[in-house]
Amino acid sequence: MEETSKLIPEPTTAAADLEVDGEEDEQDPESHSLHQPLLKRTPTLTTHHLAMVGAKISHIESLDYEINENDLFKHDWRSRSSVQVLQYIFLKWTLAFLVGLLTGVVASLINLAIENIAGIKMLHVARLVNEKRYVTGFAYFTGANFALTIVAATLCVVFAPTAAGPGVPEIKAYLNGVDTPNMFGASTLIVKIIGSIGAVSAGLDLGKEGPLVHIGACLASLLGQVGSDNYWLKWRWLQYFNNDRDRRDLITCGASSGVCAAFRAPVGGVLFSLEEVASWWRSALLWRTFFSTAVVVVVLRGFMEYCDSGKCGLFGKGGLILFDVSSVSVTYHASDLLPVALIGIIGGVLGSLYNHLLHKILRLYNLINEKGRMAKLLLSLGVSLFTSICLYLLPFLAPCTPCDPTLDATCPTVGRSGNFKQFNCPNGYYNDLASLLHATNDDAVRNIFSTGTPTEFRPISLLIFFALYCILGLFTFGIAVPSGLFLPIILMGSAYGRLLGLVMGSYTYIDQGLHAVLGAAALMSGSMRMTVSICVIFLELTNNLLLLPMMMFVLLIAKTVGDAFNPSIYEIILELKGLPFLEANPEPWMRNLTVGELAAAKPGVVSLRGIEKVARVVEVLKSTKHNGFPVVDQGVPSPVGMPEGATELHGVVLRSHLVAVLRKKWFLQERRTGEWEVREKFTSVDLAQKKGPKIEEIVLTEDEMDMYIDLHPFTNATPYTVLETMSVAKAMVLFRQVALRHLLIVPKYQGAGISPVVGILTRQDLRAHNILGAFPHLEKKGEK
Amino acid sequence: MEETSKLIPEPTTAAADLEVDGEEDEQDPESHSLHQPLLKRTPTLTTHHLAMVGAKISHIESLDYEINENDLFKHDWRSRSSVQVLQYIFLKWTLAFLVGLLTGVVASLINLAIENIAGIKMLHVARLVNEKRYVTGFAYFTGANFALTIVAATLCVVFAPTAAGPGVPEIKAYLNGVDTPNMFGASTLIVKIIGSIGAVSAGLDLGKEGPLVHIGACLASLLGQVGSDNYWLKWRWLQYFNNDRDRRDLITCGASSGVCAAFRAPVGGVLFSLEEVASWWRSALLWRTFFSTAVVVVVLRGFMEYCDSGKCGLFGKGGLILFDVSSVSVTYHASDLLPVALIGIIGGVLGSLYNHLLHKILRLYNLINEKGRMAKLLLSLGVSLFTSICLYLLPFLAPCTPCDPTLDATCPTVGRSGNFKQFNCPNGYYNDLASLLHATNDDAVRNIFSTGTPTEFRPISLLIFFALYCILGLFTFGIAVPSGLFLPIILMGSAYGRLLGLVMGSYTYIDQGLHAVLGAAALMSGSMRMTVSICVIFLELTNNLLLLPMMMFVLLIAKTVGDAFNPSIYEIILELKGLPFLEANPEPWMRNLTVGELAAAKPGVVSLRGIEKVARVVEVLKSTKHNGFPVVDQGVPSPVGMPEGATELHGVVLRSHLVAVLRKKWFLQERRTGEWEVREKFTSVDLAQKKGPKIEEIVLTEDEMDMYIDLHPFTNATPYTVLETMSVAKAMVLFRQVALRHLLIVPKYQGAGISPVVGILTRQDLRAHNILGAFPHLEKKGEK
Repeated sequence: MEETSKLIPEPTTAAADLEVDGEEDEQDPESHSLHQPLLKRTPTLTTHHLAMVGAKISHIESLDYEINENDLFKHDWRSRSSVQVLQYIFLKWTLAFLVGLLTGVVASLINLAIENIAGIKMLHVARLVNEKRYVTGFAYFTGANFALTIVAATLCVVFAPTAAGPGVPEIKAYLNGVDTPNMFGASTLIVKIIGSIGAVSAGLDLGKEGPLVHIGACLASLLGQVGSDNYWLKWRWLQYFNNDRDRRDLITCGASSGVCAAFRAPVGGVLFSLEEVASWWRSALLWRTFFSTAVVVVVLRGFMEYCDSGKCGLFGKGGLILFDVSSVSVTYHASDLLPVALIGIIGGVLGSLYNHLLHKILRLYNLINEKGRMAKLLLSLGVSLFTSICLYLLPFLAPCTPCDPTLDATCPTVGRSGNFKQFNCPNGYYNDLASLLHATNDDAVRNIFSTGTPTEFRPISLLIFFALYCILGLFTFGIAVPSGLFLPIILMGSAYGRLLGLVMGSYTYIDQGLHAVLGAAALMSGSMRMTVSICVIFLELTNNLLLLPMMMFVLLIAKTVGDAFNPSIYEIILELKGLPFLEANPEPWMRNLTVGELAAAKPGVVSLRGIEKVARVVEVLKSTKHNGFPVVDQGVPSPVGMPEGATELHGVVLRSHLVAVLRKKWFLQERRTGEWEVREKFTSVDLAQKKGPKIEEIVLTEDEMDMYIDLHPFTNATPYTVLETMSVAKAMVLFRQVALRHLLIVPKYQGAGISPVVGILTRQDLRAHNILGAFPHLEKKGEK
Repeated sequence: MEETSKLIPEPTTAAADLEVDGEEDEQDPESHSLHQPLLKRTPTLTTHHLAMVGAKISHIESLDYEINENDLFKHDWRSRSSVQVLQYIFLKWTLAFLVGLLTGVVASLINLAIENIAGIKMLHVARLVNEKRYVTGFAYFTGANFALTIVAATLCVVFAPTAAGPGVPEIKAYLNGVDTPNMFGASTLIVKIIGSIGAVSAGLDLGKEGPLVHIGACLASLLGQVGSDNYWLKWRWLQYFNNDRDRRDLITCGASSGVCAAFRAPVGGVLFSLEEVASWWRSALLWRTFFSTAVVVVVLRGFMEYCDSGKCGLFGKGGLILFDVSSVSVTYHASDLLPVALIGIIGGVLGSLYNHLLHKILRLYNLINEKGRMAKLLLSLGVSLFTSICLYLLPFLAPCTPCDPTLDATCPTVGRSGNFKQFNCPNGYYNDLASLLHATNDDAVRNIFSTGTPTEFRPISLLIFFALYCILGLFTFGIAVPSGLFLPIILMGSAYGRLLGLVMGSYTYIDQGLHAVLGAAALMSGSMRMTVSICVIFLELTNNLLLLPMMMFVLLIAKTVGDAFNPSIYEIILELKGLPFLEANPEPWMRNLTVGELAAAKPGVVSLRGIEKVARVVEVLKSTKHNGFPVVDQGVPSPVGMPEGATELHGVVLRSHLVAVLRKKWFLQERRTGEWEVREKFTSVDLAQKKGPKIEEIVLTEDEMDMYIDLHPFTNATPYTVLETMSVAKAMVLFRQVALRHLLIVPKYQGAGISPVVGILTRQDLRAHNILGAFPHLEKKGEK
């Protein structure tokens, strides 16, 4: 695996108190007595705590996907009537429906806007070129693109930095359990929609596909938050959705709907979420996601039927079914395996090369972006200018080609779409490079996928197209506008695929258009390393099931070859942004380290007592940044059935719940339990509210500080635990499979004077990079 | 949820010592001291231990999907060179390739055999009918079917009872972690192949689809076992595959390949495994499964290309692409939503009704089957006779219909396939019921799916067809031949779909053939409750992507309606067979019970000491049937770092490993550790061998009984544990997600004299039905 370096500064000692989701700054004297670590250790396990979210450095917290089984939750849960349960189920489906509906509507509107804006632009330019007013045409083309880029980039830079880029890596991290602040807000959504329209219309080498995924996720998140207190509407029903688990499911639906809307591929959308985006998956979710994408498809179809009657301006037939090659009968033979394998191998090599170079360029761009907003803006505008110049001028290098009268297609075409662009040529001639460059990206793909036109493009034109889009694809992705990875890769891939088909000539039976399709799929697989979902997306896109066996073959080869070089592009971006993504499979060397050794490399645990002094709770909350504290009972008042002198591990209490209790000032005069009273003051819905004054903002009197809190009702009494002898590999599997935020380590020994909890593991502690920082010798062992 | 009763006798007290995967018969005095259960409990949690595998009652064990991290494993793992790791990866892919290849070849051969046998039969019968020799025709038809059924049923009854039925529920249980003995053996495979050919050729109302899934799984299991000691080949490389995890992955590949081969639907096959069959899933497995199905498709394509040249007898074009409707352009409008919704609703109602009735009939059949082999055989033959009589005689009720000269199709047809069968009619006329009944099942489906033929079938014929196949579908499934559920349901569904289309007449734009397709999909979804995979299978089957939105709509409605009545047919069969399948989602009432309370309802734990006397090990193994024993260290020789008076939970040791140690007689003279010596005698490959003498067959001398065993190197030192306060719901999520066999319960208290382990949970203990037996009041609470 290639080593990837990060955009985020490593935490310095001075910054160490900023840590958000780590553990223990304080020492618990009991917890260290038993440890004779077998491995030499560095004093602390560094806790990496900053990451890029969108284009902005943010503090990272984890999400609570675990069901927090405290008394309040249980009480609330038991008291839910069957009507409420039905309401909840009904709402889940309603929300899934709304996610699909809104994503479909927004996608339709985006398509409509892009097709019209870009269409008007292209029409004008075509007219000007046709009138030989080349300079005016150039000025108009470049100016329009420049203006559109300014709109998109300014919005992104000023209002919502998280709207830049594709958003897919952040969604992936969110679904893995990483809270990505400001990623799914209303401002992000609006900027993403407008910015995406601007950037795509500006002819930049980017697509609306990635942004649509993000838009779907934003819509889902906003719908699920209607009930939370930071929005005007506070509907009682929706309060049940104010938890991370249900939001996760909704966002999965949203991401699937986005992919579905981008490619009109409902099954592909579901599989994309399943294969690439989601970390957890249940059969019930599969079904709900499928429902959302079905709604999207119905909306898109309704929209297209409406537009068929010409009410949508320049929309016409473009935009949605990208590349329908269903009319082509695919014939191939065993002898075609070799050229197809070649496409796959080249796809794998090019894909990993693209990943490698994009990584370098993103790091370079980050240096520029750090210089401030103006630098970001200038970078975007520079790329726009370069793109416009290349797109406009390069076709002039190509000679005019006479139209082939044996083909059915209109030739030459003047106007916004069409395959054989007349451009600067006399009647009866067309400019093949203009057919690719003087078109929207969607049209370019459609043209290069066109079948039955083996003589249309000259090799040199395809080569120029390929080279140009390689450069553009690398330099456009990182700029501050909403951008997707799909389309640039499809453009590059289709170019080399078609070029290869042209070179092979008569050696193969497969049409050049299909070569282009296979090339695009191969490069996607080589860069993104997905197989099943790309396969299905391409089948739904091209509407031709007979491609299936070849497609599978190409995808498998490309992925295998690509994996030999470096990780997938999304993994590289996640790593680059420093998002603490937890992989599904542990590293081999993790079997050689126990969680006990890992815990020993961290400062001790900060425990609270079951009935704790307010002053102590406040002090602990202020002096640490941890989000979970073990609650340990010891001595009086002894719980029923507790043996003499024993200690009891009651569970884990969350910071947010402690703050909620302090905020409500639910204190007791003496050291006693108050389980029944608390139910009158709190519901589990209150605890779920994350917004409100921070611990620093809560003012408590001296008297209050001397009072007590009974933590029992707020404590998650059923935390997941592991023995200290558990290997890190197995603990990680547990952490990841059950979607935990905190994992308690309990001692393997049973006896007097032993602390019932040895340590707490969080997401940060289980990240390979972080562990290797503290145990550097492990890597060498694991290298074999 | 409908209450389903079982085929298996509830365990009686007399049978209690037969329990295989339960726990503790002996009392451990320490383990009970702390328990004051909050709930009144029955003395023991009954351990259900018998289940039907195939058609045979067997003892059920669980599988070890957890990585058993004992010293030997770790040592072995560390000593693997990178070449060996590469070998392992290479082998994994080679096996996946072979699974696909062999499944493809076997599927091709089965198709070839069926098409030829059934073809010759149908040709003869058609000729006899054409010559008006009705009685001879009847005798020939019935006799041939009878003979073919005898072959299939005799093989199943005598040689491999597990080959009867579809096998899908058992595969589902296996992948869930239930060992299903004799399910994947060579004899099962051979009987399944021959039996399936016989049963399908006999014209019974069953398909080759379910059996193909089982065949794929058998092939995968056998391939993975080539290295194990019960086969002649013992290849060193393959030894690494002698573990349940790798076999699980292979069987998943096999099941996907089987579905792929049945429907020629590679993506559908992968999704079928994902949605219905597999309990655990990883991204890497998705990819490998996809590879296997890709290989299957290539094999099938090669086979069909070969047969296209007429070298395959009567094979022709039949058999594989079941129903290609790609030529139909699907046009539909918003007004079609209503009829389509109606198809979905009826599909859901009929599907759940089918599930309900099939459940009753399977119970009835079980009473018959218990009477012995002859009863089974007679039942099968009776069904065969009834089927033959109906199929042959019913078409005589239908009047002859004049051929419609406006249609392109040949009419009438004489021969084995073809849509408009002449049967007993004069030239220029055809018998519509004969087109459906005097054909192989595949041809019948193809005919009923035929598009552009709105006048072909009369409503009364379709009604007769539907009624007949409802009866046959219910009574054929349970007989002792290899049978699938897919085809009977498709036949029923297509009949009512087409009938509905005929009734709607001009109210809908949708072709009757598509109505039939939608009806088939709806009934499948209504009975099997899958959505995404059925959708993809049907799309690949019909080769028409434009059906997608309607298909999704129908499937979602049918599943929703069906779920309102009863569980899916596979769940009903699993329940009926008593297979201890662990659901993904816990029951709501499981939150109200802690694992501590659950453990208290069981007899105490039988623990072993780290260095144990041979006599004690033998005694424990002989007196209990448990498969896992906690290893607890106490006193001398104290491990390094153990505090005075403390006890240590070292881990869990498996029965099979203890037996392996006894078999090798690796004993120590005194009470000491022997960690280093053991590595010379054992490798983890030795421990993985499950075959060998049972504990009862090992003879030990008096001297040997007085010696000691150091259990440490064999103990899984990293067992997963839960606190006794953990709710059963959360423990079950852990158990299921991480694929466990044993889950240790540790005390929440820490102090002197407390046992470090409170109990062990196994699969049986976490089954809802079992828990409710011990805690009957929970169900009432949970009913709300």
